[in-house]
Amino acid sequence: MGRVTVRRRITRIDERGTRGRPDTLVVEEPLEIRLSGRPLSVTMRTPGDDFDLVAGFLYGEGVVRAADDVATMRYCADTDALNVIEVTLAEGVDPPEVSVERSFYTTSACGVCGKTSIDAIRQRTRYDVSADPARLDPGMLARLPDTLREAQRVFERTGGLHAAGLFDAEGTLLAMREDVGRHNAVDKVVGWALKDKRLPLTGHVLLVSGRASFELTQKALLAGIPALAAVSAPSSLAVDLAEEAGMTLIGFLRGPSMNVYTGAGRLPGP
Amino acid sequence: MGRVTVRRRITRIDERGTRGRPDTLVVEEPLEIRLSGRPLSVTMRTPGDDFDLVAGFLYGEGVVRAADDVATMRYCADTDALNVIEVTLAEGVDPPEVSVERSFYTTSACGVCGKTSIDAIRQRTRYDVSADPARLDPGMLARLPDTLREAQRVFERTGGLHAAGLFDAEGTLLAMREDVGRHNAVDKVVGWALKDKRLPLTGHVLLVSGRASFELTQKALLAGIPALAAVSAPSSLAVDLAEEAGMTLIGFLRGPSMNVYTGAGRLPGP
Repeated sequence: MGRVTVRRRITRIDERGTRGRPDTLVVEEPLEIRLSGRPLSVTMRTPGDDFDLVAGFLYGEGVVRAADDVATMRYCADTDALNVIEVTLAEGVDPPEVSVERSFYTTSACGVCGKTSIDAIRQRTRYDVSADPARLDPGMLARLPDTLREAQRVFERTGGLHAAGLFDAEGTLLAMREDVGRHNAVDKVVGWALKDKRLPLTGHVLLVSGRASFELTQKALLAGIPALAAVSAPSSLAVDLAEEAGMTLIGFLRGPSMNVYTGAGRLPGP
Repeated sequence: MGRVTVRRRITRIDERGTRGRPDTLVVEEPLEIRLSGRPLSVTMRTPGDDFDLVAGFLYGEGVVRAADDVATMRYCADTDALNVIEVTLAEGVDPPEVSVERSFYTTSACGVCGKTSIDAIRQRTRYDVSADPARLDPGMLARLPDTLREAQRVFERTGGLHAAGLFDAEGTLLAMREDVGRHNAVDKVVGWALKDKRLPLTGHVLLVSGRASFELTQKALLAGIPALAAVSAPSSLAVDLAEEAGMTLIGFLRGPSMNVYTGAGRLPGP
C-alpha cells in the first residue's frame, strides 16, 4: 500500500513573516488498471484501498456486476511501484471491447443533453431505489458529517482529501474511504460493498464531503443507494437524475440544517 | 448560451423547522465536442463560454497549438440544445486518431508512476516557465482571492461553482471563468487566452478557487504560466510537477497568508 501523505519543506508567509517549515501533502499518483493484460484506464488517485477502487470503478463502468465476476486482482509484478493493478475476469465475463472510460458519454449521439443522459442511466441501473422504504430521521442525518470527520481523523489531515462514507439506516458508519478525487472515494466505498457482497445497498445513506455531481449521483444509484447526502451543493443534473430515479438527495448537510432537493417523502413532513 | 443556474423548489430543514422554499442550483450539462464530424469527447460542464472551453480542451490535449489551428467552431445545427459543438481544423492540422481524452494516461506502459508522468509532461510542454523572470509580491498575491470572488459576484451564487482567474504581474484580473468542473474553468481561461493569441502567458498568475491537482498544474504549464495559486491544498504530484518545471506553486492563499510549495525564489526572501 502506497503512502497517503508525504512531508515536504515549504515556505510559509503570514503576518509573522516568511519562514521555512515542514508541511504535509496528500499523495496523488496514477493508478493503471489492466484487464486481461491490456491497459484499460489510468486514474489519478490517492494510494490506499486500491482494490476497492478498482472493483468500484469496474462496477461503475458496467464491466463487472458482482464480486464473483472478478477472478483475480493483483499489483503488477513487473514494477516496484504499486501503481498498476492487473485484473482477470471470471470465465464467461466479457471484457469491454475498448477503453470504457467515459464511454458512456463518448458514445452519445448528436443531440446529447441532460435528458438523454438521464435516460441512458436509467437503462443501466439494475436497482429501483424509488421502491426503497427507507425513512430518514433528520436527527440521524445531522450526526453524519461529524461521524465522517471523526473517521477521517485516523488519517493525517492535509486539507486535500475528499471523503465518502456509507451509513446504515441508523446512521452507523459502515465504510469510509478518502481520495484526492471525489469520484474515487465513492468508487472505493462501492467497491468495498461489492466485494463484501452487500449490493444493492437498500436502506443505506451515502455521505460525500463535497459537492454532489451527476457522476456521484449515478454511482450511488448504480449501487442501489436510496439516499445521497452532500456537505456542499448538488448540480442541476444531479438533482434531475435523483428525481427521475426516486432517490433522496440532500445538500448543504451541516449539522441540523440541510436542503432536501428530491425524495423529501422519506423525511418527516412539516 | 445555456443557463448557468436554475431555480428549483426544495425542502429546507433547520432550527426553524421544515418548509418549502426556492433554491438556486448551478447547471451541469454534457457538452459533446465533435471534430470533423466525429464525436471526440463529452465533458460535464456549466454552460457558458463553451467556445473557450472547447479551445482550451483541444489545446490541453495537444490537438491544436494555436488559435489558427481551428478553422471553424459552431453549435451543432441538428439539435435545439446547445450541447454539441462541431470543430473543423485548419488545413494541415491532423485530427487525433482516436479519442484523445485521457490518452496521455491511457497510453502509459506498465510501470507508470509519478516520475513517468512528469517526464511525459515535460516532453509535451513547449514553454520553459523556469526561465520566466516574474517577481511575485506577497501583497499583490494577497489581493487575488478577493478580486476573484468579486468577479464571481456577477453570477448568482450557488456554492457549486469552481472559478479560475488569470492575472497579470500587477494583479489585474484579465479573465475569470466559472464551471462546475474545476478543470473546465481552467480550460475556459486557457482557451480564452489561446483565442486571444496571448500564449505563452509569461509573467502571469493563475488562481484557482479550490485545490491544485496534477491536472490543473499541467494545464497551467502548457499555457506557459509561471505561477499557479490555489485557495486550497495542492497534491503531491502537483508539487512534484511544479518543482520539475520551475513553476511557482502557492497553496492555501487566504489574504496575506500562503504556503509557497515551489519556486519561492520569485518571492522576496525572509
